[in-house]
Amino acid sequence: MSHPHPELGPPPPLPAHALRIVALGGLGEIGRNMAVFEYDGRLLVVDCGVLFPEPDQPGIDLILPDFEYIRDRLRDVEAVVLTHAHEDHIGAVPYLLRERPDIPLVGSRLTLALIESKLVEHRIQPVKREVAEGERHGFGPFDCEFFAVNHSIPDALAVAIRTSAGIVLHTGDFKMDQLPMDGRLTDLGGFARLGSEGVDLLMSDSTNAEVPGFVTSERDIAPVIDDVFRSAEKRIIVACFASHVHRVQQVLDAAEAHGRKVALMGRSMVRNMGVARDLGYLKVPPGLMVDSREIDEWPPEDVVLICTGSQGEPMAALSRMANRDHQIRIAEGDTVLLASSLVPGNETAVNKVINGLTRWGARVIHKGNARVHVSGHAAAGELLYVLNLTRPSNFMPVHGEWRHLRAHARLAALTGVPEDHIVIAEDGVVVDLIDGRARIVGAVPAGYVYVDGLSVGGITDVALKDRRILGDEGFISIVIVVDSTTGKLTGGPEVHARGSGIDVEAFDEVLPQLEKALEEAALDGVNDVQQLRRVVRRTVGRWVSDTYRRRPMIIPVVVEV
Amino acid sequence: MSHPHPELGPPPPLPAHALRIVALGGLGEIGRNMAVFEYDGRLLVVDCGVLFPEPDQPGIDLILPDFEYIRDRLRDVEAVVLTHAHEDHIGAVPYLLRERPDIPLVGSRLTLALIESKLVEHRIQPVKREVAEGERHGFGPFDCEFFAVNHSIPDALAVAIRTSAGIVLHTGDFKMDQLPMDGRLTDLGGFARLGSEGVDLLMSDSTNAEVPGFVTSERDIAPVIDDVFRSAEKRIIVACFASHVHRVQQVLDAAEAHGRKVALMGRSMVRNMGVARDLGYLKVPPGLMVDSREIDEWPPEDVVLICTGSQGEPMAALSRMANRDHQIRIAEGDTVLLASSLVPGNETAVNKVINGLTRWGARVIHKGNARVHVSGHAAAGELLYVLNLTRPSNFMPVHGEWRHLRAHARLAALTGVPEDHIVIAEDGVVVDLIDGRARIVGAVPAGYVYVDGLSVGGITDVALKDRRILGDEGFISIVIVVDSTTGKLTGGPEVHARGSGIDVEAFDEVLPQLEKALEEAALDGVNDVQQLRRVVRRTVGRWVSDTYRRRPMIIPVVVEV
Repeated sequence: MSHPHPELGPPPPLPAHALRIVALGGLGEIGRNMAVFEYDGRLLVVDCGVLFPEPDQPGIDLILPDFEYIRDRLRDVEAVVLTHAHEDHIGAVPYLLRERPDIPLVGSRLTLALIESKLVEHRIQPVKREVAEGERHGFGPFDCEFFAVNHSIPDALAVAIRTSAGIVLHTGDFKMDQLPMDGRLTDLGGFARLGSEGVDLLMSDSTNAEVPGFVTSERDIAPVIDDVFRSAEKRIIVACFASHVHRVQQVLDAAEAHGRKVALMGRSMVRNMGVARDLGYLKVPPGLMVDSREIDEWPPEDVVLICTGSQGEPMAALSRMANRDHQIRIAEGDTVLLASSLVPGNETAVNKVINGLTRWGARVIHKGNARVHVSGHAAAGELLYVLNLTRPSNFMPVHGEWRHLRAHARLAALTGVPEDHIVIAEDGVVVDLIDGRARIVGAVPAGYVYVDGLSVGGITDVALKDRRILGDEGFISIVIVVDSTTGKLTGGPEVHARGSGIDVEAFDEVLPQLEKALEEAALDGVNDVQQLRRVVRRTVGRWVSDTYRRRPMIIPVVVEV
Repeated sequence: MSHPHPELGPPPPLPAHALRIVALGGLGEIGRNMAVFEYDGRLLVVDCGVLFPEPDQPGIDLILPDFEYIRDRLRDVEAVVLTHAHEDHIGAVPYLLRERPDIPLVGSRLTLALIESKLVEHRIQPVKREVAEGERHGFGPFDCEFFAVNHSIPDALAVAIRTSAGIVLHTGDFKMDQLPMDGRLTDLGGFARLGSEGVDLLMSDSTNAEVPGFVTSERDIAPVIDDVFRSAEKRIIVACFASHVHRVQQVLDAAEAHGRKVALMGRSMVRNMGVARDLGYLKVPPGLMVDSREIDEWPPEDVVLICTGSQGEPMAALSRMANRDHQIRIAEGDTVLLASSLVPGNETAVNKVINGLTRWGARVIHKGNARVHVSGHAAAGELLYVLNLTRPSNFMPVHGEWRHLRAHARLAALTGVPEDHIVIAEDGVVVDLIDGRARIVGAVPAGYVYVDGLSVGGITDVALKDRRILGDEGFISIVIVVDSTTGKLTGGPEVHARGSGIDVEAFDEVLPQLEKALEEAALDGVNDVQQLRRVVRRTVGRWVSDTYRRRPMIIPVVVEV
């Protein structure tokens, strides 16, 4: 197996009849999935998603793939294939289309409808190429065949990309529910046929490669939801992902069976379910739905609310209910169902929500105490099926952190893929498929591009480091005014401190020291602004460190008048 | 059951022959456990621990109980009973003893030895009263009987407190391992005897009240550890809590069986295991231990390192190994065993460590993929035993967040404790036991006291809010200099910005607006510093918000010369 090579240089030119694969996201992280395929001077992109920030990326809204690698070659992009409509696969599309709005978007009916409704908010009308399972379409030199896969959103696709370099099967995200709600199975027959034809490279979803066994069927949740409805005394509030059509369908079915009205809350929930309903993916019994603004007109025992916020997002309805900062006031006897997985990184936020709801008297049902969610990603047992059916010559685990990629690589080795035909690549690592062999040949930049407010890429890692220091320690700013002709101190020092936990009065202790240090500097002939700043920073920094054992950011400001 | 009463006022005076209980920590959170018992004007404290900060408490080292409630009555404190030596039960003792150093500390042999070795670092020599299970001691009017309980640290105790108000049993932290490593069982016989006598109030550990069933025996981990040793090719690195004597013992036993030398790393690990060894709680075969500085002299396949850092603490050895910032350089074939629970809140940090170690080629074994840890806290099945054996007249769940307290209260109700005899209290809520009935009668302040560097309590919630804003958005400081006699602008505006992600040059756009706004203010006769600040903040704030849709902290500084 290939190992991390921090020393990788730029890749060599791509030979004729070779296929180049560069993931700009999704390898070494779960999120911002984006793979760029190159053949004969043309590019095909598979997915273009966002990554959600972690606590050590404060203030960041979203993280995008770095488009730099393809920025000068956007005209060479034949299409962006979107395997399904989850944010980590489509969320960066608006940002890519800003750079070239007419890149064709390829995807299934629901996928395109959901990305289109999202693009409306960005005032972009995309060029769409709808495809379906079983179909084969050419996009420039890339001959793409699409396969149905089962996932936690309807209408997901895997894609086989044929060039003269060979056949690459990219699974997208998938699981293998054998009794799916919509009857749409992952096309193992198709995978087997492709395997007979010869898969030169398999790129397969690694999310659950560490999890032994098999994912339970989505259907197995229905009895649990039914139990909740049977035992609920007052309101039922269900929180789930805004794109989980099947989960919402199950709640609608249960509501109908138990005679409760349903209201949807949350902009993305309302928007996505509207699209799914219009296209027939969500079946809504007549008279079932009510407007969430009218929910108080119904007795609590007659309603169900379906909302977002299952990941503890602080601005979502559920968090606000937990904090008593929402029109819906949780009361004794209410039941809250968190019908979703707990995305790693959100544990603390979700725990706060559970405690808040519990405090006000709600019974909270979550994956920790009931089977209210099944994963959307195939576990190790299922991944072995795909490896055995496709019998790939080369294997490259995708969609995972290092732990997942390595675990998936081990599974591939167990099924007989030779270790030196298994490529573990990180974001930006360049993999060439040449003469039936996949090899790492170099690396290109693939850093994080941060979205913060209206700025894309404006926040650098330096700014983030500053934020971490400011967040942990606060800052102290010391202003002095010097006469630009004489170099004499004519105003200040004036101190401002925030977040440092040091009282403004406490600085009375250091100001005489500072004045003395500045006088001494003046006697030594120091009147350069940089040097004066250094004197201020050193004097105050040392005092803070000695007195408080802390390291706030120290900002010396020297104004010349 | 009693519910949260945010409107609770100060408690009434305590009647004669009544017992008052106020938890200053541990109710509504897992950490900073501290309960104050009052009878006949005298106080008894049970435990005095710390809480570890969450991501929304940036830069904080520790959180203490607020001693304000007892600050004026420290002379009335008869003793602090320490049930066991975990940080969330003893960590705040040094801070309490700073306020009155001669408060007697009551605890078992190991508990006192560990707190004493910790107090050495704070240069405090405590007054100790060693007790043991089966013993009964009076501390002022509090007649205390001690019971052995089994936990994830040896020598833990429960305490029954007798006054004429009745018998209160405080379990401390416990589980009910029926085949404990040291043969020391939780004294259910003692609990039963107390139950026959009549327990007026049971205060019992709620940590695992949501977890159905029973905790596996500590012994069941041994085969897993043995497997790890059998299959490890190179170095073995075990990370666990620095106080988990039994876990370390298991690793020492496995190391001896497999002919590996053992080195301890981490100050607290070395200190605690030294104490445990000196007192005979840890049995170290001769010749087994080597100095961690000499570890490189042994072949990788002949050594085991036991270190701290199992919670992803960034400065601990394990995190530094994961980041290649440590003398121990993780290599292909190394095995890392995370033999500890994952404390809620640390998921992201631990995930980073696992990915980092995996990236460099280590096999990482953790609770997600093997049974390498068992909880130290009784699960629901076991808690029912204690409720049924003690048959308390009143029940008050302790040691838990709201979710855990409510779950434990439900268990108590199921065993027959009348709902109106179950008291769910938060920190600071005052519970009086009068005439055999426990009731909430008021509340006292019990806020967080933050330790940051050398400061205790210096960081307020206002400073923390500032830190969160600074961490999320950074700050912009604008300095102007005005002539104090004429009120005219004589210097600046000068802009400094950090963490805002806005280039210094970008401010060229707003500076003319700002100068204009200041001129207009001057024409309007504004020369008050506060008003000038307001003009600066408003002008710059509006520009940032319109241009970037962000809200950095804006610090206008007006210096008068």
